Amino acid sequence: MKIFGDKRSGNCLKILYLADKLRLKYTWQEVDILKGQTRSEAFLARNPAGQVPLVEFEGGRYLAQSNAILLYLGRDSALMPADPWLEAKMMEWLFWEQYSHEPAIAVCRFHMRYLERNADELIPEKVEKGNQALDRMESHLRESGWLAGDAMSLADISLVAYTRVAQEGGFDLSGRPAVRDWIRRVEDELGL
Amino acid sequence: MKIFGDKRSGNCLKILYLADKLRLKYTWQEVDILKGQTRSEAFLARNPAGQVPLVEFEGGRYLAQSNAILLYLGRDSALMPADPWLEAKMMEWLFWEQYSHEPAIAVCRFHMRYLERNADELIPEKVEKGNQALDRMESHLRESGWLAGDAMSLADISLVAYTRVAQEGGFDLSGRPAVRDWIRRVEDELGL
Repeated sequence: MKIFGDKRSGNCLKILYLADKLRLKYTWQEVDILKGQTRSEAFLARNPAGQVPLVEFEGGRYLAQSNAILLYLGRDSALMPADPWLEAKMMEWLFWEQYSHEPAIAVCRFHMRYLERNADELIPEKVEKGNQALDRMESHLRESGWLAGDAMSLADISLVAYTRVAQEGGFDLSGRPAVRDWIRRVEDELGL
Repeated sequence: MKIFGDKRSGNCLKILYLADKLRLKYTWQEVDILKGQTRSEAFLARNPAGQVPLVEFEGGRYLAQSNAILLYLGRDSALMPADPWLEAKMMEWLFWEQYSHEPAIAVCRFHMRYLERNADELIPEKVEKGNQALDRMESHLRESGWLAGDAMSLADISLVAYTRVAQEGGFDLSGRPAVRDWIRRVEDELGL
C-alpha cells in the first residue's frame, strides 16, 4: 500500500505509527499541505475531500479519514478490542478525537508552529476547547491506564498523535500527570 | 435502553431514526441543550464530554458520540456492510460527517434557526465548508445510489440527519438533484 501524507500532520503520523507497529509494508509519498498539494487536480482525483492521510490499496482503491484508515488496517489486530462494548467505547474516543480534540489542539499547533503566531494570537475558543479536551483525558486516565479497556487500542494511537505535541500549540501538560504517563506508555509501545 | 437527546439536534435524531428502523425498545429523555442541561452536574456525571446524544444501557453503562452509537446499535444489522472494504468506506463517510459536514451545516442551521440570525450573518468559512460538503455528496451520489456500497448503510442514516434540513441553515439543494433524490430514498427507507 501507498500512504499519502504530510509528516508534520498528526493525522498522517497516526497511520505511520500503526503501520510500523503492525510491521505492514508500505511506501510513503510526502504531500505538502502548506504548498497546496492536497488541492491539486491530481490529488483531488484520488480524494475528493482534498485531505491527507490517504491510502492507496491494490486495484486503485483509496481510503481517507485517519481514523477510518486505522480501523481498516488494524481490524484483525490486538489493537481492536474483541468485546463489542469495548469496541464501542473505542469508537466513542475516535469520534470524540475528530470532533473535540483535533479541531482545537491541532489547529492551535498549526497556528503556532507553522503560521508562527504567538500564544496570545490563538483563537480563544480553540484554546478553551483544547484545554477541556486535555482535562477530560486527564480525568479518564487517572482511573484507567488506557482509553478503552485495559490494553492499548487504536484509540490510544489516534489520540496520542496530537496530544504528545500539544505543547507546540501552547498547551501545558505539566498539571496533567496522567496524560504525561499515558503518552510515555503509548510511545514505549510504539517504539517512538 | 434510554436515549438522552434534544429532538432539535440532527445528531440525536440519527439515533432515533436507527432505533425505530431496527424496532429497538427505548425510552427517550429530552435534554434541552439551549437551557444548558448538557452542562448540569448530573448530566456531566453521565457524560463528561457534556454532549447529547447519550445512551444508557443496562448496568449504568453509557455511550456517547452519535456515530459510535449508530455503529454499536447497528452492528449486527443489514445496515453494517459485511465486506470489510465497504465497512471501511462507510467509516470514511462517518468520520467525514463529523469533521467536514456537521461542523459546517449543523452550525449554520443552529445559528439561523435557533439563534435567529439571518443568512448574511453566518460565518462565511462555515457556509463555504458546508457548500463544499454538499458538492462532494452530490458528486458521489450522481455515480452511486448510496454512500457505501449498493445498499443503505449507517453512513446514509448519519449523513441524512443534517442534510435533509440543510435548507434551514441557508443551504440550497435545488442545484443538487442527486442529493435530493438520495434524501427521499433514505426517508422512504426510514419511514420519515
